[in-house]
Amino acid sequence: MSKYAIGVDYGTQSGRAVLAEIGTGREIASEVFFYPHGVMDERLPDGRPLPPDWALEHPQDYLDVLSHTIPALLKASGVDPRDAIGIGLDVTASTFLPVKADSTPLCFLGEFEDEPHAYMKLWKHHAAQDQANRITALAEERGEKFLARYGGKISSEWYFPKILQILEEKPEVYDAADTFVEAVDWLVWILTGQLTRNSCCAGYKALWHKEEGFPEKDFFAALHPRLADFFEEKMYSGRVSPLGEKAGELSERAARWLGLAPGTAVAVGNVDAHVAVPAVGIHESGKLLMIVGTSICHILCGDTEEIVPGMCGVVEDGVLAGKFGYEAGQCCVGDHFEWFITRCVPEAYTAEARNRGLSIHQLLREKAEKLKIGESGLIALDWWNGNRSMLVDYDLSGLILGMSLTTRPEEIYRALIEATAFGTRMIVDNFTEHGVPVDELYACGGISHKDPMMMQIYADVTGREIRIGASTQTPALGSAIHGAVAAGCERGGYDTVAEAAVEMGRVLDTVYRPIPENVKAYEALYQEYKALHDYFGRGGSDVMKRLKAIRESAKA
Amino acid sequence: MSKYAIGVDYGTQSGRAVLAEIGTGREIASEVFFYPHGVMDERLPDGRPLPPDWALEHPQDYLDVLSHTIPALLKASGVDPRDAIGIGLDVTASTFLPVKADSTPLCFLGEFEDEPHAYMKLWKHHAAQDQANRITALAEERGEKFLARYGGKISSEWYFPKILQILEEKPEVYDAADTFVEAVDWLVWILTGQLTRNSCCAGYKALWHKEEGFPEKDFFAALHPRLADFFEEKMYSGRVSPLGEKAGELSERAARWLGLAPGTAVAVGNVDAHVAVPAVGIHESGKLLMIVGTSICHILCGDTEEIVPGMCGVVEDGVLAGKFGYEAGQCCVGDHFEWFITRCVPEAYTAEARNRGLSIHQLLREKAEKLKIGESGLIALDWWNGNRSMLVDYDLSGLILGMSLTTRPEEIYRALIEATAFGTRMIVDNFTEHGVPVDELYACGGISHKDPMMMQIYADVTGREIRIGASTQTPALGSAIHGAVAAGCERGGYDTVAEAAVEMGRVLDTVYRPIPENVKAYEALYQEYKALHDYFGRGGSDVMKRLKAIRESAKA
Repeated sequence: MSKYAIGVDYGTQSGRAVLAEIGTGREIASEVFFYPHGVMDERLPDGRPLPPDWALEHPQDYLDVLSHTIPALLKASGVDPRDAIGIGLDVTASTFLPVKADSTPLCFLGEFEDEPHAYMKLWKHHAAQDQANRITALAEERGEKFLARYGGKISSEWYFPKILQILEEKPEVYDAADTFVEAVDWLVWILTGQLTRNSCCAGYKALWHKEEGFPEKDFFAALHPRLADFFEEKMYSGRVSPLGEKAGELSERAARWLGLAPGTAVAVGNVDAHVAVPAVGIHESGKLLMIVGTSICHILCGDTEEIVPGMCGVVEDGVLAGKFGYEAGQCCVGDHFEWFITRCVPEAYTAEARNRGLSIHQLLREKAEKLKIGESGLIALDWWNGNRSMLVDYDLSGLILGMSLTTRPEEIYRALIEATAFGTRMIVDNFTEHGVPVDELYACGGISHKDPMMMQIYADVTGREIRIGASTQTPALGSAIHGAVAAGCERGGYDTVAEAAVEMGRVLDTVYRPIPENVKAYEALYQEYKALHDYFGRGGSDVMKRLKAIRESAKA
Repeated sequence: MSKYAIGVDYGTQSGRAVLAEIGTGREIASEVFFYPHGVMDERLPDGRPLPPDWALEHPQDYLDVLSHTIPALLKASGVDPRDAIGIGLDVTASTFLPVKADSTPLCFLGEFEDEPHAYMKLWKHHAAQDQANRITALAEERGEKFLARYGGKISSEWYFPKILQILEEKPEVYDAADTFVEAVDWLVWILTGQLTRNSCCAGYKALWHKEEGFPEKDFFAALHPRLADFFEEKMYSGRVSPLGEKAGELSERAARWLGLAPGTAVAVGNVDAHVAVPAVGIHESGKLLMIVGTSICHILCGDTEEIVPGMCGVVEDGVLAGKFGYEAGQCCVGDHFEWFITRCVPEAYTAEARNRGLSIHQLLREKAEKLKIGESGLIALDWWNGNRSMLVDYDLSGLILGMSLTTRPEEIYRALIEATAFGTRMIVDNFTEHGVPVDELYACGGISHKDPMMMQIYADVTGREIRIGASTQTPALGSAIHGAVAAGCERGGYDTVAEAAVEMGRVLDTVYRPIPENVKAYEALYQEYKALHDYFGRGGSDVMKRLKAIRESAKA
């Protein structure tokens, strides 16, 4: 009799749940639920406007994902709840919220419902850039060792810059919160009644290290006097749970709510990118997974802890137990193409796509794949949403260069795709040059299935083979794998993530292999990208930062 | 009893004729005729494909302009042909064609009709860049004094680079041509039976100087042995006719063809930009006229001959008798916006414009004028068609910088307009810094009437007042003024262009005045434009040139 595990993956716009068979990874059922409030980047639900660079979400939407998807999975699959032996969850990070000691989000309380800082700050909330800059500067000044593990820069997307922003801008919220908890740990808390902190979020987003723990008290004190006692004051015990561990079991109340069996194993929470690694079968070093969505996360394991400038982080046990997990990322990939198709594609193209029954992406791909490499004369810097790796700088902005009066939309579209490929190549080269080998690439996410042209461009630009995760819900499958491991071998699951990855992880038969003449043609373009990247990103010209400052003062 | 003059202005896409009243400049009638063959930049009429950067026109189209417009003018106005005392013509330059000694274009002959080099090379034919570079290099090497009068660079848009291209690529055409004549001089020849060469084309486009004549024989010999005897061999007498002079009188045959009176005075030909100066009433130094169309030509008179780096040229008597006429230009203005609206405006905007009965330009202007200066965070280099002044470099290409995921079409549209304003400011500052004062700006051309936002931006960016030519056909009115001067005072016209300008030149009541706070806001953006301009245009990075080379080899 088959056993099953459930994985729930929270992305930027929606939550997806799968029910997967233990032993095969076969996805028996899947459900998706879009957040009713979506990303709140212009205003709160009550209409209150938000400043630039804010991005919030509503915790109720995250609960609604569970209410809508879990019972639907069971219904669609016909699986007996008692055979769903484990559940795992993953969320984007650092996406966290201020809560009371009983896990109630502050924004659920009447007095805070019109307070932006009381809501969940989404990973792409970039309004704590100033705080991030100050944390980096202080760490540099004090020669803090942890800084190098984060590529030399603390991102505004992480935990402490956002915490500091709340403390500085709205001390009332800071005071009223009993703790600030990553959304995934909050959900696990809701399901089990127990607060855990997962090593992935703690390591990559909150400066935690397996041996050294968190930065020292006097570092936080120097940042802000109130932060000296952050860990004691804000219910943050310092105990961090490793991935693959069981966080607890489903409470009676949660079981009734979701229609599952009480006592079902609940895995320690995970991050939407990192959790995907075992779902494509990776359980060893040297294989870099690209999770291609609105952004790209690059996850790679190595056997040693190396200091790689500009990476997002290295965390021991942060991806696979016994390995050093490395993370890097690009801020703007799917978002980039979406910007282009909604804002820059002329009516003639939209009409042609409609008449021919194609999506606009399909039409543009059809036209773009006929172009020879370099034929457009265009090159772009893919910084529409700033640069995560290796510059970790959200004050950078996009650039397109090389336009002539004959430049066509498909040429720009292809240049934007190529720019993201060059960005990935920067990351791959950077790891390799700093002692973390990258032998093969893997990709997952919708675009990796839908856009063979893009995958071939990535293979040609990086000079490496690319394999594609078979699941269309790779992170959710990864979470299900973690659920199966939380259940353990004894209850029909697995004892280690590596064992589960071998059986439940899956790739497609298609392999994208670099084509030597394309590799050569892209090499010349990549050198141009690199020169522009360094000129605008590394101090040759700070025009992007000055224009952003002008823009902000014009809007003020 | 009123007397009238006719002016015919040949632009890039069409010819326009006006019949204007002597004494008032009132335009009694006007007619336009679009060239049936248009700009041939992809193929010849027989389908034969053209290489990149070519731009040809068909001389028959230029004759058809006369056949269609002149009789129609007379009919519409009811004016007695005997009261139309003078006719003037202007054409873009250097737009010239190879002809036989009897004025027959080579492309009219069966043996040459499928030969691209036998057609009229339009001003924006940029395929002689290599020849232009070699002419510049040779002149530098030999320390030729004339080079400084052309800003240090010979443009591929001019006469001799194109002549050299023909000689090198198709010596048969070079051999078969008895002369190579500017289109306007060819038309005057057709009308009068006499070949004249006007000082404007000769001075700005063919290296002629009032005192020094053409470059010396050994310069041409060093360029190509066959060019040593160019002037003797190719019916180019060296006699150059000053502007405002009478070229001849209408032949019996031409008079019958067009329905005019035989003996009507025909003015020496002129260039479409330069001819416009008196039509806005300018007859003094320090007033810079911008002819705003697909490109901008900047025409300015000064009292002394100064060497201004990167200008297109300084020619004594080249604009107004007794003055030194200075020319500069921007390659890509109307073309630039047209590229944007046809290739980059999304369906939602096109549909909104349609539903509200607006043109897409009107809709974009409405949205763009609500933006604060600097609010978009964007800056562009207006080099979609290369850079005419002050870099004289057609291997440069366009750039947009500062995009974010919230960047909207109207923000890009406005950034493109601002980029052209910054380009004009570069030109104005450059003249001023080199001893040619610019006190006031004048603008003419359709955009100057249609786009008050753009004119205000130009006033704010340059910090100068802008007056707008009243005529919607300013060059044609300028040509009519020259026709009136060719007729002379005795026959009811004028003896000088200055006198005619005072009576027949006209501006609108609207004056665009710089708004101090906008001037200040644009100053910061202009400094950014200038830094990018110099980095990409003056050797900081030659990425645009390298991408163009890659593009050409990819296409080959």
